Amino acid sequence: MAPNHNHNTNIAPFETIAIIGGGLIGSSIARGLKEHHLCSKTIIVEKSNELCSRVDALGIADLATTNLAEGVKDADLVLLCTPVRSFASITKDMASYLKSGTVVSDVGSVKNKVIEDVAPHLPEGVFFIPGHPIAGTENSGPEAGFSHLFHDRWLILTPLPAYQNDTDYLHAKDRLKKLWQKLGSNVEEMDAPHHDKVLAITSHLPHLIAYTIVSTATDLEDDLKEEVIKFSASGFRDFTRIAASDPEMWRDIFLTNKHAVLDIMQRFNEDLTSLQKYIRRDNGDALYDAFARTRAIRRAVIEHGQAVPEEFKKAKK
Amino acid sequence: MAPNHNHNTNIAPFETIAIIGGGLIGSSIARGLKEHHLCSKTIIVEKSNELCSRVDALGIADLATTNLAEGVKDADLVLLCTPVRSFASITKDMASYLKSGTVVSDVGSVKNKVIEDVAPHLPEGVFFIPGHPIAGTENSGPEAGFSHLFHDRWLILTPLPAYQNDTDYLHAKDRLKKLWQKLGSNVEEMDAPHHDKVLAITSHLPHLIAYTIVSTATDLEDDLKEEVIKFSASGFRDFTRIAASDPEMWRDIFLTNKHAVLDIMQRFNEDLTSLQKYIRRDNGDALYDAFARTRAIRRAVIEHGQAVPEEFKKAKK
Repeated sequence: MAPNHNHNTNIAPFETIAIIGGGLIGSSIARGLKEHHLCSKTIIVEKSNELCSRVDALGIADLATTNLAEGVKDADLVLLCTPVRSFASITKDMASYLKSGTVVSDVGSVKNKVIEDVAPHLPEGVFFIPGHPIAGTENSGPEAGFSHLFHDRWLILTPLPAYQNDTDYLHAKDRLKKLWQKLGSNVEEMDAPHHDKVLAITSHLPHLIAYTIVSTATDLEDDLKEEVIKFSASGFRDFTRIAASDPEMWRDIFLTNKHAVLDIMQRFNEDLTSLQKYIRRDNGDALYDAFARTRAIRRAVIEHGQAVPEEFKKAKK
Repeated sequence: MAPNHNHNTNIAPFETIAIIGGGLIGSSIARGLKEHHLCSKTIIVEKSNELCSRVDALGIADLATTNLAEGVKDADLVLLCTPVRSFASITKDMASYLKSGTVVSDVGSVKNKVIEDVAPHLPEGVFFIPGHPIAGTENSGPEAGFSHLFHDRWLILTPLPAYQNDTDYLHAKDRLKKLWQKLGSNVEEMDAPHHDKVLAITSHLPHLIAYTIVSTATDLEDDLKEEVIKFSASGFRDFTRIAASDPEMWRDIFLTNKHAVLDIMQRFNEDLTSLQKYIRRDNGDALYDAFARTRAIRRAVIEHGQAVPEEFKKAKK
């Protein structure tokens, strides 16, 4: 029975899953699949023998290989978990080896460009359903993953509009959705352009700002820099965590979500310039108003259950 | 025996302590004093009867009063815990009621301006020793405090250079230092201009940036704003926490540390403009290099014992 005809909800949605890229996200998926027995065979494709050995040593996949064709040929699901600018060439390289009925998805933080890079190269009968887990840490590599990374986190699917009435595509999407739910995620759907705008402000701009402020600190005179590190608890520390994220992944995100990022940066710059002007002109009332209105967003974030402040948790001990 | 002649290390460094302003920091100090029996009498001076009633209801002070003169007249230590721009007028109002030998200190996040505003108004025989606990949360008000807020946090003293050879002053400083150590802090000394530069980068700029990015989000179209809140876990959430801090306190910080903040903002803007240019010009190599070098600072922060990443803690569960 071809996997795309499997309507039985009691069995695993995919038999064989190939994960391309066994870094933080890919290795976390592999760990989750194993822990929850979500497929019969997990394959991780990596770019070097050294990385395959590290994956083997962790015991998180049934096969770790540098051979893309071998990795994907029996897969019912292929998940692209490498930096997004590698997707086009990987897709071209693997396309002819994919079985009919295979679902291809990804975990990239941008979606417009990924659809542009992947969809045109896939053969008929293969279903491409882009995805993005809103989860991660600042650590990278196969050793950095953990099985509960996706617990209670959002997973956004941006299905292709062209297939919105295609029963087989919709069924494939449901299977992918079920898999992510079994990994602990809350699955949402969105169109790709909207996803890229939302993420530009919630994730891409914050990362760019964090990189910038840590970079500014890196350029300080040595004695000042030492004390910045020592007294980082006063706010700077949160930024250093964000700015420690994988440079290759983030380079690709900024280059592939360029327009949304530049647009939101422009707005951010205008707002920062206003505050700067208020400070320069000693305009205390305008500063107070600007600071007071941001509290409402924080309340909304807390009410949405996305955040319990650390200090608050400590206070309740 | 006047408190400034008390060299016995086994008893509490101050008998009567007056805390001006019972908000997050002031009420946390009061709670710590009580819990560790660090003085015989704790007085909190607040600006309204309503706030005094709230302090009374919490049972964290022996006396809560709106009468500044009554609050400070028997105090061996007066701690200014209000927003920093109020220090000058409070000092003028209380100066004539202070006993000889009283130590005056504060918890302000800027030190140059505080010294300018406080020192000239104090009578002879009163010791002013500026201080700054690197601790806090985004919550405010007497109910927000907790006794272990200062545990393992830095407390920076910026003693006045003019008294560096004054034995009585140095003794008063040692007593203040001992008090903060008993509250759990690690005490460091620094000159005020250096403090203000270090804090401009570690604390003031990060807060200004956080306020800005949350403000940028506040101005978004409604449908986008809703999803920014919903998907805030992708980076934005950390910024909303910082941007929920007390607006009055932060207004005062930016106005009183204006020069150091504007200087560091200038550097930040230059760095942000560079990254923006790299994105616009698709300069992936330059982006990669910029992102890779910030990892070193993160490592230094972790090695300094200031941070255990949240995700890492979860992963170890």
